[in-house]
Amino acid sequence: MKHSFSLLIGIHPVDSALSKAPQQLRLITVADECRNPRVQELVVRAREAGIRIVSEPRTSLDRKSGEQRHQDVIAEFEASNLGQEKDLDRILDEIGTDPLVLVLDGVQDPHNLGACLRTAEAAGVNLVILPKDDSAGLTPVARRAASGAAEVLPILIVTNLARVLRRLKERGIWLAGTTDSAGTGLYETPLTGALGLVMGSEGKGMRRLTSELCDYHLRIPMHGSVSSLNVSVATAVCLYEIVRQRQAR
Amino acid sequence: MKHSFSLLIGIHPVDSALSKAPQQLRLITVADECRNPRVQELVVRAREAGIRIVSEPRTSLDRKSGEQRHQDVIAEFEASNLGQEKDLDRILDEIGTDPLVLVLDGVQDPHNLGACLRTAEAAGVNLVILPKDDSAGLTPVARRAASGAAEVLPILIVTNLARVLRRLKERGIWLAGTTDSAGTGLYETPLTGALGLVMGSEGKGMRRLTSELCDYHLRIPMHGSVSSLNVSVATAVCLYEIVRQRQAR
Repeated sequence: MKHSFSLLIGIHPVDSALSKAPQQLRLITVADECRNPRVQELVVRAREAGIRIVSEPRTSLDRKSGEQRHQDVIAEFEASNLGQEKDLDRILDEIGTDPLVLVLDGVQDPHNLGACLRTAEAAGVNLVILPKDDSAGLTPVARRAASGAAEVLPILIVTNLARVLRRLKERGIWLAGTTDSAGTGLYETPLTGALGLVMGSEGKGMRRLTSELCDYHLRIPMHGSVSSLNVSVATAVCLYEIVRQRQAR
Repeated sequence: MKHSFSLLIGIHPVDSALSKAPQQLRLITVADECRNPRVQELVVRAREAGIRIVSEPRTSLDRKSGEQRHQDVIAEFEASNLGQEKDLDRILDEIGTDPLVLVLDGVQDPHNLGACLRTAEAAGVNLVILPKDDSAGLTPVARRAASGAAEVLPILIVTNLARVLRRLKERGIWLAGTTDSAGTGLYETPLTGALGLVMGSEGKGMRRLTSELCDYHLRIPMHGSVSSLNVSVATAVCLYEIVRQRQAR
């Protein structure tokens, strides 16, 4: 897998990475002016874990963080959970039986992307696949919304999503798309077994080719006059129905 | 019910209110400079519906909208779906059998509040109850996130939440709280019948007294290392399990 560095900004993201994947933290930078005991506690733990720590003026952290609130601490994170299409087969081999894959076909809002990742991790998703183009990236905003999930979930960022979907099917993984209108009811569809849940973008839904590659389309029941659910909510409702069915199996 | 006015800001909220509750729109204000055909189409429909329309300089809309992006259109909305504790019995009478009530005990973020309302409306919730203090209000941000639901869902804003919860119980409505730790599994708990789902605030969860008033506590299964779900996602997962059980009944 490609090892890319990303910046974690603020106490919670750094704390979360320190707890869950300390070996991937390369450098923690703390503001000279920092008097926050929560940051100081982080520094103690990071030191124990053998992570390099440097101190810089707060203005330097301001510059590196852009618009994000850094709370006097940022860190360089080596994102070894990120991969590309070439890593797909190896990861599927590692997962073993009945993988649960989440495909996000062009989610635009980094908050939504992060929220989807947070829920995916909680629901036991084994692998997330994002298209490289026309999708929100794993920006600091998305990572913060993901609440630690972006640093631990295996995520493939792929240039040719259709080819990857075809490969999933060749590997015996059924693809379940989602739709506002037609399709089978979410609660009437068996969702155990090897499964890829495919969610579209906010507003537009799945792209045509993506939709055509799905083996079936799930419809979430809508009882009110509001026309659709937020994409991160729709993702959660589908993923947790999969959790329920797997649990009941 | 109390008739309070609120400001709808931007094309989608105004469009949504115009489609779903035109009788509650009192005044639509359009920027003099507006050339957007989507706004002009709104104006045509509003005129047909007999709604008063005025034109003002864009700077006037800027001032009224604060930081919200108004897209050259704002509207005054008479929120007759909002009520107080004294309206509770009448609303429950109107709902009839097996009401589904959502109680949000102190959600802080207006985006989360709006997202909860959007999902609640889609899931067929009959009534939402919010505490007056220590909760996000129905601000323009919350209304926008609710995507039209804040204008149609019956919502009670109450000063004494504990008293309202006791009244719900007296009326035969079971209260299901939510918890990260103890409690019964969401998917092992019967959730049909008259039910109030009680969600706590981000981070802190339900207040102690609220928690004690619940008849049982639901636990959403967590399969990863992330410690909790976003409150709007947790609300969606619980509400849609209720939808599923009611549908299967």
